[in-house]
Amino acid sequence: MPSFDPAHSAGSLVEFIRSAVTGAGFSRAVIALSGGVDSATSYALAVRALGVENVHAVLLPYGALNSQGVVDARLMAGSAGAPEANVSVIDIWPMVDAFLALDPDMDALRKGNIMARTRMIVVYDQARKHDALVIGTENKSEHLLGYYTRFGDEASDVEPLRGLYKTEVYRLARQLGVVEPILSKAPTAGLWEGQTDEGEFGFTYAEADAVLALAVDQARSVDELVAAGFERARVEAITGWVRGKAFKHHLPLVAG
Amino acid sequence: MPSFDPAHSAGSLVEFIRSAVTGAGFSRAVIALSGGVDSATSYALAVRALGVENVHAVLLPYGALNSQGVVDARLMAGSAGAPEANVSVIDIWPMVDAFLALDPDMDALRKGNIMARTRMIVVYDQARKHDALVIGTENKSEHLLGYYTRFGDEASDVEPLRGLYKTEVYRLARQLGVVEPILSKAPTAGLWEGQTDEGEFGFTYAEADAVLALAVDQARSVDELVAAGFERARVEAITGWVRGKAFKHHLPLVAG
Repeated sequence: MPSFDPAHSAGSLVEFIRSAVTGAGFSRAVIALSGGVDSATSYALAVRALGVENVHAVLLPYGALNSQGVVDARLMAGSAGAPEANVSVIDIWPMVDAFLALDPDMDALRKGNIMARTRMIVVYDQARKHDALVIGTENKSEHLLGYYTRFGDEASDVEPLRGLYKTEVYRLARQLGVVEPILSKAPTAGLWEGQTDEGEFGFTYAEADAVLALAVDQARSVDELVAAGFERARVEAITGWVRGKAFKHHLPLVAG
Repeated sequence: MPSFDPAHSAGSLVEFIRSAVTGAGFSRAVIALSGGVDSATSYALAVRALGVENVHAVLLPYGALNSQGVVDARLMAGSAGAPEANVSVIDIWPMVDAFLALDPDMDALRKGNIMARTRMIVVYDQARKHDALVIGTENKSEHLLGYYTRFGDEASDVEPLRGLYKTEVYRLARQLGVVEPILSKAPTAGLWEGQTDEGEFGFTYAEADAVLALAVDQARSVDELVAAGFERARVEAITGWVRGKAFKHHLPLVAG
């Protein structure tokens, strides 16, 4: 982490996207722009890699929920010079509510999974329509903490950010000129009003990334991190998320 | 393939499911029963592994399309002694049509992907509701031929059949007492009226499996298969499907 160089990272990730997309025989990409920093950064990289006319931004609000996300996503696409025809706003409300109608007792987690997966269906359908690949937006912090919906926001064809911690994505985003409102707001999955990632975790991304860089990348033990000055309860909370969600990386279990 | 022993396979796959499900801390499973042989076989294995009261069958018709599938799936669940409460019939028509309304020009492939992915959303939601894992139904022939929808029918937590060719699944199905109407009808993905797998391939599963067992499992060349008596055009058609769909196994491309 200390050696992260945003300018160098930008160059190599632009090249990665270009070779991944063209190597698969495509020239176009689709990205779901949420108004958050990860999708804005993926978008900025894809625009540099493929040309703004070859990147289709899909904005997927659920009715009026997180409407600021749509405003910020539009601002991002506009700042990249996206033609109007390359920005689609598709309200997922009718599809999501058709699922919700199946069971009046659904809790927030089930609703959130349905929303994330409904977005996946629309994004993949748009990709097929535009003969494009889907660029994903998952970063290393979310990946390690298991903070995603399988077959939902996790689903993609090309993942430029998965090697970068959230705090590094922010530095890369500044390097790429991601618009200020996106850089300054609290990260949220946008699945219900007032939701924030850090509120759900009980720790910040800055805290998580510092611990993960040692506990995961360098395989340091909890005791070693405590000896290095980290608070034990915080280290255990963060590594607990990693352990508790590790199953997401190991499924499906396949008979030999 | 010649050495396939259905009785031995049944025993080891029952044990695989039991240890996969309990090892993950669960006692229950959900399976989407289509009325086809793969899901019926997965279901029969799961019932033996977990007890019929711990397996929830979800039948997911799209309106009146493939209504024989629902009849046969009900027959299968009934023959296993499933309690009524363990069989849910959920019509995906309202959800699917909400997606289809987005674009009047959708082709059959886009519609089929939407149907398969809508089923995934419902199956995963049912799994969460019942605190259960999702048992998948993909066999080795479909897997190698890439005959599935990513994040759709491919999505699961436990895959008992992926090591078995379709022709082996039929032998296992007979061993397990899968009901006769399911054994005797043509395999179909059920995405439109009259669709059959073999009609889409242009070759039969028996032909495909014989070629795949040599071309994939034993890495024999097309020339070697022709020398062994296979028709060149057929071998090339089958290996062409494998090559043409291989990308599905290699996505997403992840930046290092």
